[in-house]
Order: sequence, then structure tokens, then C-alpha cells
Amino acid sequence: MKIGIVGLGLIGASLAGDLRQLGHMVVGTSRQVATCKLAISRGLVDEAGTELDILAEMEAIIICTPIAHIVPTVTQLASLIKPGTLVTDAGSVKGSIVAAATQIWPHFVGGHPMAGKAESGIEAAELGMFQGQPYVITPIKGTVKSSIEQLANLVNALGARLYYATPEEHDQAVAWISHLPVMISGSLISACVANNDPLGLRLAQNLASSGFKDTSRVGGGNPELGLMMAKYNRAEVLRVLAGYQQDLAETVRAIELEDWAGLQLKLEQNQATRTNFLPPTI
Amino acid sequence: MKIGIVGLGLIGASLAGDLRQLGHMVVGTSRQVATCKLAISRGLVDEAGTELDILAEMEAIIICTPIAHIVPTVTQLASLIKPGTLVTDAGSVKGSIVAAATQIWPHFVGGHPMAGKAESGIEAAELGMFQGQPYVITPIKGTVKSSIEQLANLVNALGARLYYATPEEHDQAVAWISHLPVMISGSLISACVANNDPLGLRLAQNLASSGFKDTSRVGGGNPELGLMMAKYNRAEVLRVLAGYQQDLAETVRAIELEDWAGLQLKLEQNQATRTNFLPPTI
Repeated sequence: MKIGIVGLGLIGASLAGDLRQLGHMVVGTSRQVATCKLAISRGLVDEAGTELDILAEMEAIIICTPIAHIVPTVTQLASLIKPGTLVTDAGSVKGSIVAAATQIWPHFVGGHPMAGKAESGIEAAELGMFQGQPYVITPIKGTVKSSIEQLANLVNALGARLYYATPEEHDQAVAWISHLPVMISGSLISACVANNDPLGLRLAQNLASSGFKDTSRVGGGNPELGLMMAKYNRAEVLRVLAGYQQDLAETVRAIELEDWAGLQLKLEQNQATRTNFLPPTI
Repeated sequence: MKIGIVGLGLIGASLAGDLRQLGHMVVGTSRQVATCKLAISRGLVDEAGTELDILAEMEAIIICTPIAHIVPTVTQLASLIKPGTLVTDAGSVKGSIVAAATQIWPHFVGGHPMAGKAESGIEAAELGMFQGQPYVITPIKGTVKSSIEQLANLVNALGARLYYATPEEHDQAVAWISHLPVMISGSLISACVANNDPLGLRLAQNLASSGFKDTSRVGGGNPELGLMMAKYNRAEVLRVLAGYQQDLAETVRAIELEDWAGLQLKLEQNQATRTNFLPPTI
């Protein structure tokens, strides 16, 4: 199969490499000539260039650009590619993308490969990154069934765990497990910095160990990603933040009232229910 | 030196093993006969027993019991041990312990070895666990200077990073970097469970990956530890929770107002300042 990848960052370049290994012919595009050259020299793509025109003959195209560029890219592709070509994306928010993209191109199918790491860019790309990781496909009323199947086959070939959800279900779930952690983790850092005098802050910094490190990790990550989550999944992010604030207020109240039995029950439930969020392998 | 260890859990047994390796004669006590036997057979102590009497001839004693038992243990030891014997503890809260213990025994010096791991108990004990980790000593007005020096020498011999702080400074710092993470991390789990219908929860659980895993880790940890933090460091924990809630409310307000420049600045600052909390080796 001839597969085009738009955007050769961490996700695009990793997908390209895996699909090429699976025997597909892969053509990539990037706005940076240097990135195109690197993708070719690292063997992640068969061809690469800065213009979308080179994707005209593709049978499937995966858009791996930042969220803001996904729908405009679908519009550009629509006048270039062959009828029936599967177009999908890798955006981490689906509601604001899928309806618009499907209207432009009926063979569009929303997708979200949920792998990643701290580093970004083609330099961080690696083979097998999606193996065992969730990959969500978000069809809507009107999505062409054969295109859904085409994408599902690619996802399965990557060794990812395939899930189907509506764009709304997806955006709600990722708000809880991906976007909320970034916001609450970030406030751990900023609240600690804002509320301590220099000596107290220095001591806190010296004493911080694995608990602080893990809890603050995603809050201290790429600011651009956090901003995109808030911007493009704003309603859901606000909704889960409100639910979170209410829950934390209950913890505060239990401590204020010295309701130790209530706090203990909550902590025990957290210990018990957390395991349901961990894949068997972790 | 003859060193006694009261309580052979993760911290006590690990300290015992390290101190014995350093050439000290180590005697441990535990309420469990099986734990005493295990400590001896694993070579962590020279002798072990269930009664404090066996510590009568020690030159230094480290109390590694749960927080609630520390001051009562000092009282018991006071009628058994030789004048001038260094007594210290490993409690994670100092304000409620140090003043009371010093009044009972003038050679008491508060201590907090800040190492740990997910597992607990003597089975999890390991040599070298305190190497490179923070170890706080919390003298107060009236603490005997020679006893402080004696403890500092032991801490340095363990290879730990030694810090001095007042009990109040210590409790404030650990509230921010250790106790607050547990509370906010716990609410991530409970809020997600409480605010989703079964299908939504199942999808969230399936999609949860490293971001959720890391941010929820300490909140899903040993409930007893979280309870003790809230109970024995209640005033500080409430104070930092209030500061945290205010900071998170600012994030919510920025998203509500679509103040993307403000949110971006905050996320950028978090990324930049988090590194100050990480020791050079991490």
C-alpha cells in the first residue's frame, strides 16, 4: 500500500518507520527540508518532500501535524488526492476535528495513536512505539465503513490496542486521563514556587524526591501540548477540572473535620481502584 | 559503636543493614518474633528481640516505628538506657515529635531519612538505600550539640545528603513536596472514578497510559502513610492544600477566559522551574 505521512515529528516519523517495516511504500512531508533529509537517511520513508503534491497517488494518508493544522491540511489534500483515499489524523482531540474533516473528505476517519515520550521531533522517533499502546478510532455517522476497516487493519498491523469511540467519548476520556493530569500536575509546581519564600523553596527543592518527581512530570512537560489540550478540548477540560476541584475539596474537608475514617476509606479506595487504570504489563 | 534500631520495617531494617556494614554493632527490636529472626538470618543485625531492654547498653538508638509510637518509645527508653545515649527517630513529621521527645530525653535529635519505595516491611529492605538521598536533622533550642554531631556523622557515613532544618521548616517543606502530592494525586483517581458512568470509566481505564500512571502513583500508595501525613502534619497540609487550590483555580480561570497567553506563560514557567526540584542525577 502507498501511505503518505504529513508531518514528520515524533508520531509521524515513528508511524512512517513502522509502516515501512511492514512493507508499505511510505512518502512523508515536512515543512523542513532538513527533516525530510533525515527521514530518508534514517530509512523511515521511501521519499520525502516539503509539498503535499507528492502525496497525490497515495492510498492512505495520516496527518500528524499539530492540531490546528489538521483540518486545513484535509482541505488542501482534497483537491490533490484520488477519490476514495483514506485520510486519517493523529490529533489528541477529536470533537473539533472529525466532523469538519469528514464534511470536507468523506473518507476521513479520526484516529489517535496514544503513544509518546518526553522528547519530541523526528530525532526521538522509534520503531515499535505503538506496540501494545492504545489507538483510538473515532468514526461518526457518515464515516465510510470501508475506510474504517482500512484504518483498523493498519492499527492492528502496528500491534496497537484498538479502541472505537465517538469523538465525544474520546475527548471526555482523554480529558480525565491525559489533560487533567497535566493541569493538576502543573499546579503542584507553580503553587509550591509561588507560596514559599526563597529559603523554604530551596529546602523543598532539596528534599523533593520520587513522589514529587512523578507527580510533577507531565505538568513540567511541553507547554505547547498543555496549551493545545486546553484550547481544543476546552469544554471537557473545564468539566473535569470542576469535578476534580470538588473531589479535592472533599479531601480538604475530611482533614479539616479530622474525619480520619473517611479519609482512610478514600485513600484505600484510591489504592484499590488505581490498578484498573494500569495495563497488565505495567 | 553499639547502635539500637527500634522497628525493623523498610527504613529500620535498611538502616540496620547499612550501619552493620559500616562496622557498627547493631541490635534491633520488633514486636514480631518472625521479623527478629529474619533480621538476624539476613545479616541485617547482630542481635534482635521483642523487648526494648536489650537496648540498655546502646550508644545510639534510632526509632523507626510508625509516628504514633515514637514519643511513647522515647519515654520507655528513658528509664532503660545510659545517660548521654543519642536517641533519634525516622518519622516523616517532626513538629509534633521533637519538642516532646527532647523534653523527655535531652539527647534526642529529630531525624528524617527521606528514602523509600513502593514496597514496605523488612522484606523490602536493601543496602545503600540512603545513598545520595536527603536526610534531614531537626535540632531545636536545647538539643545537645554533641548529639547532633554524633547523628550527623552517622548520616554522612550512610552517604546521604545531610540537611539541617527546624521541625517547622521541615514540616512545611515535606507538606509541599511529599504530602501535597499524595492528596492531589489521590483525587485524580477518585474524581475520575466518581464522575464517569461505567462505559466512560472503562474507556478512560483503557486509554490511561504513562501520564496518568505517574501522576496517580503516590495517590494510589499505602493508605496508612497518607493518613499519617494528614493526621500528624494537619496544619501544614491544610495550608499547602489551600495554596494549591488557589493556584489550580487560576488555571481554571485562564481556560474559562481563554487567556491562552497567560496559560502558556504558566506552563512554560512550570517546565522551567521543575528542573530545580530534581537532583542532578535524575
